[in-house]
Formats: sequence, structure tokens, C-alpha cells
Amino acid sequence: MSTLKAEPDFVLHTHRIEALADGVFAIVMTLLVLGIDVPELPRATGSAELTGALLGLWPKLLCYVTSFVTLGVYWVAHHLHFYSIKRADRVLLWINILFLMTIGLVPFSTALLGEYYRVPVAAAAYGANMMALGLILQLHWWYATRGRRLVSPDLEESFVRSVSHVILLGPAVYVVAMLLGWVSTTLALVLFLLVNLIYILPGGAHFYLKSSTTGQP
Amino acid sequence: MSTLKAEPDFVLHTHRIEALADGVFAIVMTLLVLGIDVPELPRATGSAELTGALLGLWPKLLCYVTSFVTLGVYWVAHHLHFYSIKRADRVLLWINILFLMTIGLVPFSTALLGEYYRVPVAAAAYGANMMALGLILQLHWWYATRGRRLVSPDLEESFVRSVSHVILLGPAVYVVAMLLGWVSTTLALVLFLLVNLIYILPGGAHFYLKSSTTGQP
Amino acid sequence: MSTLKAEPDFVLHTHRIEALADGVFAIVMTLLVLGIDVPELPRATGSAELTGALLGLWPKLLCYVTSFVTLGVYWVAHHLHFYSIKRADRVLLWINILFLMTIGLVPFSTALLGEYYRVPVAAAAYGANMMALGLILQLHWWYATRGRRLVSPDLEESFVRSVSHVILLGPAVYVVAMLLGWVSTTLALVLFLLVNLIYILPGGAHFYLKSSTTGQP
Amino acid sequence: MSTLKAEPDFVLHTHRIEALADGVFAIVMTLLVLGIDVPELPRATGSAELTGALLGLWPKLLCYVTSFVTLGVYWVAHHLHFYSIKRADRVLLWINILFLMTIGLVPFSTALLGEYYRVPVAAAAYGANMMALGLILQLHWWYATRGRRLVSPDLEESFVRSVSHVILLGPAVYVVAMLLGWVSTTLALVLFLLVNLIYILPGGAHFYLKSSTTGQP
Repeated sequence: MSTLKAEPDFVLHTHRIEALADGVFAIVMTLLVLGIDVPELPRATGSAELTGALLGLWPKLLCYVTSFVTLGVYWVAHHLHFYSIKRADRVLLWINILFLMTIGLVPFSTALLGEYYRVPVAAAAYGANMMALGLILQLHWWYATRGRRLVSPDLEESFVRSVSHVILLGPAVYVVAMLLGWVSTTLALVLFLLVNLIYILPGGAHFYLKSSTTGQP
Repeated sequence: MSTLKAEPDFVLHTHRIEALADGVFAIVMTLLVLGIDVPELPRATGSAELTGALLGLWPKLLCYVTSFVTLGVYWVAHHLHFYSIKRADRVLLWINILFLMTIGLVPFSTALLGEYYRVPVAAAAYGANMMALGLILQLHWWYATRGRRLVSPDLEESFVRSVSHVILLGPAVYVVAMLLGWVSTTLALVLFLLVNLIYILPGGAHFYLKSSTTGQP
Repeated sequence: MSTLKAEPDFVLHTHRIEALADGVFAIVMTLLVLGIDVPELPRATGSAELTGALLGLWPKLLCYVTSFVTLGVYWVAHHLHFYSIKRADRVLLWINILFLMTIGLVPFSTALLGEYYRVPVAAAAYGANMMALGLILQLHWWYATRGRRLVSPDLEESFVRSVSHVILLGPAVYVVAMLLGWVSTTLALVLFLLVNLIYILPGGAHFYLKSSTTGQP
Repeated sequence: MSTLKAEPDFVLHTHRIEALADGVFAIVMTLLVLGIDVPELPRATGSAELTGALLGLWPKLLCYVTSFVTLGVYWVAHHLHFYSIKRADRVLLWINILFLMTIGLVPFSTALLGEYYRVPVAAAAYGANMMALGLILQLHWWYATRGRRLVSPDLEESFVRSVSHVILLGPAVYVVAMLLGWVSTTLALVLFLLVNLIYILPGGAHFYLKSSTTGQP
């Protein structure tokens, strides 16, 4: 074979990966609603019965909100990574597909917890899904920044490390929430929801959003 | 940590938010059809029975049309906002995710009303979903324009206010429709559908589409 | 109010509409598969029973293929329109949303025909959905080209007319297919599928793809 | 009719096809999760029963992973084609729609195998879906490169051929996996999963990623 050039001359554009990710995030967010079934009641249902049935949906609605917000956080985090990551290679591509595969399971684990919200194992399965998201995202960051493989050589070590810490905060709290599920799954769910505030509120992990070099405009 | 720059040097592009919103809108619009189940009839069904069953789907079809048109109105309104909004920040991002989370519930509330279209509470739940959309959109506009935070400093106060009025017309009519549901849910549904004409017809809220400064080309 | 400029200074970009349409088409095409249910058989099913059940799915598969190909034809046609249409206005936008609303019903009418493929009314309902698509597309073309409203003033009348004829060929054949359904729904379905060849094969309606002015590069 | 120009003056941009394909891939990947149903257990279910039910989902999860990874491989392959393919024509467009139609069936064949994972015919149906993907992709490549129809005239024959060989490796292994299904569907499924390593690992089919001309930067 006469084609002997090294692999890197196939340039995989990061925006392609981001576009696939955008699509998957938008669809997964939207499929979450399928976990909230329309209540099945007898034909002659009145407003009182339906009101009762709707109020009984609160665990499913809480699961929906928690997953939606968490997906929002991971969507932002994923894009922030690509603010630093300048190139993609084959390994990064497949870490991304692994990440999206785990994102794709969220409607299942959300519907599972919504259906069995009193069962600690359901909260643990939900937490395992979320924890996998955090750990894969950390792998993504580690791979891209290791030896400044796919980022700018000027990226400061302190920035790389603080991003890692912020990412790993999530899985750390998820473990606590999973254990808490054996006390009360509602408490666990509230913790799954509130942990997102670390990433949403400016006072928390806001340094994540800063670029590391002063010279960058 | 040596990374001490202020937060705004992370530039969140508004087109990213718009792309996520476009995806969510397209998917939600398309998922609405899942609220119209294929009728379940015995095997030996003839044309007469199937015709009857299909005609019996009219409330679901009316719900489908109403929600699709309403989503179209909000899709246009959301884009029009970004015609004025020049920058995004963290808060605007999360107002958007809240907005999309509420959009994501529309297939549920539509299927609910389609299934229980004789029950006033179903119309009220539907109206509550729609009202939340309008109020979050108003929050979006208020946050972006307050002190000209994310818009051009030249944006005229009269324009800002008239946009607010147009947005809030929706929720105001939704309240009436929700109450009307206790008289007739069909009347309520028709009002939910017709309120969109305010935004579609040129004679209604068409000033919404105008830019505020004469100098703009 | 001091904002007195005429409406057209809000420029609605046609690529926005095309992007929403692309999203809706991709999702609707993909949702078609939900019309092919996995057969429900007893636990101890062997290969023979499953083979039988899978072969029994042929009407659903034929409906899937027919709808997918038809959607492909309408996707191409919709894009071809925007090859001539240079601007959008409010009315065009809402014709597009009406078009997408009808596209969004295709998974329902496809699943309906797949479920009741022996019932003529199911074929008629399917045909009605398809006919609506063709007629709305013709409305789209008529509105945009009428008085050269949203197209180049140089667009030749003969081109405008031949595009209309090509669009209307579809609904004309759909009527025949719908009537044929009372003889045999399989024949009707085959005609629904084959009519697409008019648009796919180069020998058929290929002039549709030509631009009208010789000077255009 | 005065419009007599040849067909090629309608320029079909390849990026339009890629955008539709991106949408379909993202949605199909995400719909795979619908093949993993939340277990239906009695109300008073405890953690032990739910754990058992969740562990019993492993075949569905394995099917999910296999299909997701395979779709990832085909998504990459499809984009790599368009790294060489510079133009599109009507036939290429319809080969693409045929490809997407077959991609669209993957959630069905995945759910089928997940439901009947002990039945060899289910594995065969799954393999047939995957084989069709590979063969249509080869048709896509053959059509585009035949006589350098839609690629650069400089594309080396050795490159064209080695790409074909790499594509056809998939279907060849799928045949083996389908036959293996009569021994053990789990073995078949593992082979369906592992064959993807040919495309993922750098040591395997990595020459696929190389461009053929040395002069290209």
C-alpha cells in the first residue's frame, strides 16, 4: 500500500463531536418526559381523582427536574472542556461516544427511580449512572490535558487540576447520596438535585469558568 | 491559584443556547404525536369501526394542533429575544435551561389533556404548563434587558416594555382559559389555540417584531 | 410608541426555518420505527415461532419504507424550494410550521396503516396525511412565488409553473391510491411507495432540479 | 419549456446530507434506550427483588452497548467518506437516505434481540440489519469513487480499495456472528461488539484514516 502517512493527517474537528453531543443532549433531555406517564384512571374520572393522581406524580416530576438540571450541568461542562481542547484524536472521540452512551441511559435510570422511588437500589442505580458520567468526564479531561496532548501547551497546571477537582466533586457527592438512599430516597434525590448548585451558583465552582492564562483576551 | 481573572472572560455564545433550544423545540414538537395513540380495536375491525375510532380522536388531534402552534409561537418568540440579546451569561443560560425544562413537559401535559379532555383539572394542568412558559420567557426578557445587561445600551425603554406586555398577554389569557375549563374544556382548548393568533396575525402584536432604533439597517 | 418602522426590518433568515425543518424531518424519520413493535410472544419461543412473527411484520415494514422514502422526497423538495426562496416573512414561517405539523403526524398515520393494513379507511387516512403534505408544499411555493414575493424577480414563469405541476402530481396519485385501497390496501401501499419514483428517478420530474435562468452559474 | 440546462447546475451540498445524517444518528443512538424497559414488579417491591430484576437486564444492556458502539463506528465511517467525497448527486443522496432508513431500524432490531436474546433468529435479524448497513456503506463508497465520480481525480486506487476492504470486513464478521448465534447468542453478541474494535483500535484498520495523497497538508 502506498499510503504511508501518519494518522494525524486525518483532522477530526472538535465541532463535529460537539454537534453530535448537542444532538444527544437535546434528545435525552426531551425523552425524560416519557418517564412521566399519563395516569391511567377509569373513564368516569372526575377532577378530584385526577388531581390526586397528578399530585401522586411528584416523585416522577422531581426525578425529571433533577435529571434535566444535571444534564444541563454536564452539557455546560462538556462545552467548557472544548473551550480548552483544541484538537481531537481517535481516543478522545471514543471517550466522547462512551460519555454519550452513558448520557443515553439517563432516561432509563430516571424512569426507574421515578417508578421505584421508595427502593434504595433504584436511587443507587440512578447514582451509578450519574457517577459514571462524572468519571468519564474526568477521563475526558485527563486524557486531553495529560502532557498537554490536545490543549494549548500554555494551559496552567493549576487550572488543569482545579477543573479535575470540580468535576470529581460531583461523583463524591453522588456516593453520599447513594448511601443516603438507604435512609430516605427523597433525601437522596434532593441531594442529587442540590449538588448541581455547586456548578450553577457563581460562588461555588465558578473558577472553572476562568481561562488560565492572563494574556488570553 | 494563579487564575484570578474575572468570570466574563468565558464568553458563552448565544448561538450555542439557540442551537440547544432549536433541538429541544424540534424534538418536543415531534414527540407530541406520541400523545395520539393508534386506536386498539379487535382484529376483525372494518372500515366503519375504524372510522368511528378515528373520529373519536378529535380531542387528541385538537390538543396536538394547539400545542404545536403554541410551541411554534414560543420558538419564534425565543429567537426574537436573541435578536436583541447580544451576550449570554451564566444566569441567562440557566433561565434558558429552566425554559427548556418547561418546554419538555409539553408532551406530557398535551397527552394528559388529550386523555382526560372532559376533566377541568386536565385543562388547568395544561394551562399551568403554558403559563409557566410565558412567565419564564418574561423572566428571560426582564433579566436580559434590566439595566441593559445583555442587550444594546441603545435599546429603547418603550420597546422593552411593549415586548413585556406582549409576552404577558399569553399567561393572562391562559388564566381565563383555565377558568373556562370548568365550563367546557373544549372552549378552553379553543381559547388556548386562538390566543396564538395574537402572535401570528400581523394586526395583533406585530410591533413585537420591530427593532427599536431607527438607525438599525 | 416611537418604534414606527415597517415590519420587514425584522429579517427572518430562511436558514433558521430550514434548520428547524431538518430537525423535525430527522426525528420524524427516526420515530417511524416505533410503529414496528417487537412481537409479543410467550417466554419459551423458539426460532420457528419468532421467524413467523417477524415475517408477519411485513406490512409494518412496508409502511416504514414507504413513509421513510416519502419523507425523503419531501425533505429534498423542501430544500429545493429554499434554493429559489431568498427571503422569509411571517406568513411563510407559519406555512412552514403548518407543514411541519403535518410532517409530525406521519408516524401516527404510518403506525395506523401498519396496524390496520387490511382496512381501507386506514389507507385513506394515510393518504390524507400525505395529500395534506403535498397541498401545503404547493401553498408554500405559490405564496413565495406569487408576484415574485420571496424569490428572485428573474424567476421564469415556466419554471414556477412546472414546479407546481410536479408538486401536485403527488396528491393526484395519492387520490388514486386512496381509492385503490378499497380494492386492496397492499396495492394502495405499493402505489404510495412507487409514486416517489417520479421524484427520485432522473427521467421523471428532473426538470424540477434545474434553475430557470441560463445566466446563473 | 425554456429551462434546458443540464441537471448538475443544482448543487446539492454534501454538508446538508451530513447534517441530516448527524440528526438521525443522534436520535437513533438515543432511542436505543427505549429497548431497556423499566422492570414491572409488584408495588411492595424491595431492594432484593429490584436488584434481581436489574441484573436480569444484562442482555438488554449488552445489546444497547453493542448497538451504540456500532452506530458510533458507522457514524465515524460515514463522516470519513465525506472527507473524500467532494460533491453529491441525486443517486448519492438516495443511497444516503437508504443508509439512514437502515440506521433507523437499529432500535427495532436491538430491542428484538434484547427481548429474545436466547433465540438464534433474533441474533440473525440483528446481524442482517448490521450487514445491510455495511453493504450500503460499501455501495456508497463504490458509487462515489467509481471513475472518481464524486471524489478528487487524484484519489489513489490503492486507497479506494483498502477502504472497501475495511468496510467489508464488518459484514464478513457479521455472517460469522449470525451463524454463531445458533451455538450461543451471547457469543454472537460478543462478536458483534468486538468486531468494532477493528475500527476503533489504531492497530487494526487505521490506514482507513489516512489520506491518500502525500501532498495534502
